[in-house]
Amino acid sequence: MTAVFTRALKVATFVAALSVAPLAASAEMHRVAFQVNDNDPQRMNLVLNNVNNLISAYAEMGDEVEVQIVAYGPGLNMLRADTSPVAARIAAMSLEHQNVSFQACNNTIQGIQRRTGEEVTLLPEATIVPAGVVHLVHLQEQGWSYIRP
Amino acid sequence: MTAVFTRALKVATFVAALSVAPLAASAEMHRVAFQVNDNDPQRMNLVLNNVNNLISAYAEMGDEVEVQIVAYGPGLNMLRADTSPVAARIAAMSLEHQNVSFQACNNTIQGIQRRTGEEVTLLPEATIVPAGVVHLVHLQEQGWSYIRP
Amino acid sequence: MTAVFTRALKVATFVAALSVAPLAASAEMHRVAFQVNDNDPQRMNLVLNNVNNLISAYAEMGDEVEVQIVAYGPGLNMLRADTSPVAARIAAMSLEHQNVSFQACNNTIQGIQRRTGEEVTLLPEATIVPAGVVHLVHLQEQGWSYIRP
Repeated sequence: MTAVFTRALKVATFVAALSVAPLAASAEMHRVAFQVNDNDPQRMNLVLNNVNNLISAYAEMGDEVEVQIVAYGPGLNMLRADTSPVAARIAAMSLEHQNVSFQACNNTIQGIQRRTGEEVTLLPEATIVPAGVVHLVHLQEQGWSYIRP
Repeated sequence: MTAVFTRALKVATFVAALSVAPLAASAEMHRVAFQVNDNDPQRMNLVLNNVNNLISAYAEMGDEVEVQIVAYGPGLNMLRADTSPVAARIAAMSLEHQNVSFQACNNTIQGIQRRTGEEVTLLPEATIVPAGVVHLVHLQEQGWSYIRP
Repeated sequence: MTAVFTRALKVATFVAALSVAPLAASAEMHRVAFQVNDNDPQRMNLVLNNVNNLISAYAEMGDEVEVQIVAYGPGLNMLRADTSPVAARIAAMSLEHQNVSFQACNNTIQGIQRRTGEEVTLLPEATIVPAGVVHLVHLQEQGWSYIRP
């Protein structure tokens, strides 16, 4: 099913719902994808600060938020057990917030393993996606906001 | 009310309007959010060049445009009275174009004040938003385009 | 016609179609704009890797994809015949994939020519757009995903 078609279906469903249901105020749901593709500790820390700020702000508003941090290319270092300069922050954030996840690009992992002959070990909080950039496109197609710090 | 719900309402309204109103050509309205999160004078100047190009291009097309430049993290320096390398350009642009605004992240300001014990003074053209990244998500949810130079 | 109006029309068409047509599975069409505004060979190569990964991933899924790489500001060097560090890769990719195009910002070109007094020559694969940033906004308004590596 195409993305446009899915969106039209969703809209059609809502349009149908409008004719039978009264309007009701409800908590807004926000979905935000962060991209990390630089091997830059300052930028990685900035992303984590951003996520903390998002979560606090939406909590104050009574809104909900789902966050995915997608690391690929040189940014994969954020999620590697041997190189991450923010491993402790990721562990703490992951424990505290179930609505934040960390996605590691498998294309990048395979490329490193081919070049170095060594196995890449990720942080236990990381999830693997086949391709970081494809995942970011998928999230945008599903209506997620995109932030590239 | 959720963002998707709001969008569905808006679409429903347009769908309803379509059945009674003939199609009319009209000036297109463009809304563009620029993100500045690096303390990099070249990038700040590039953003201002981008905004000038946008405004000229849409003026030539007879279209309208609204622009917000959102500065946060190390990018806040763009809007600080004591550090901005582009203060003169911002003053001139702000005078010339009512449809361009400059948003400074309050989370970043508070963080600097906590760390340094000194008050942050902004350029007179800057407006404060509670959190830069939340504001950028909000604009995207409202259908704004997002540019991160 | 405004972008919102166009979108509403498109949705209205789909909503109408839904009432007469059964749901049919079909290849999804993805459209992705990449922005290059840094004069950074590593980032240019990362963009080309990203595009290769996108094309392979969607080919495996049986989906279709259209990609535009938009270069402006210092990123224009990616598409200049005399400066591009990735000219050979662009030539190869352009031959192999009809669905990938390379857009060069004319505002940037004119600016360089004014400053240097020299003619800018582009790679034969490049297409000129009046303003890179306006083009990126246009693509987002048409529903394209946006990736800024």
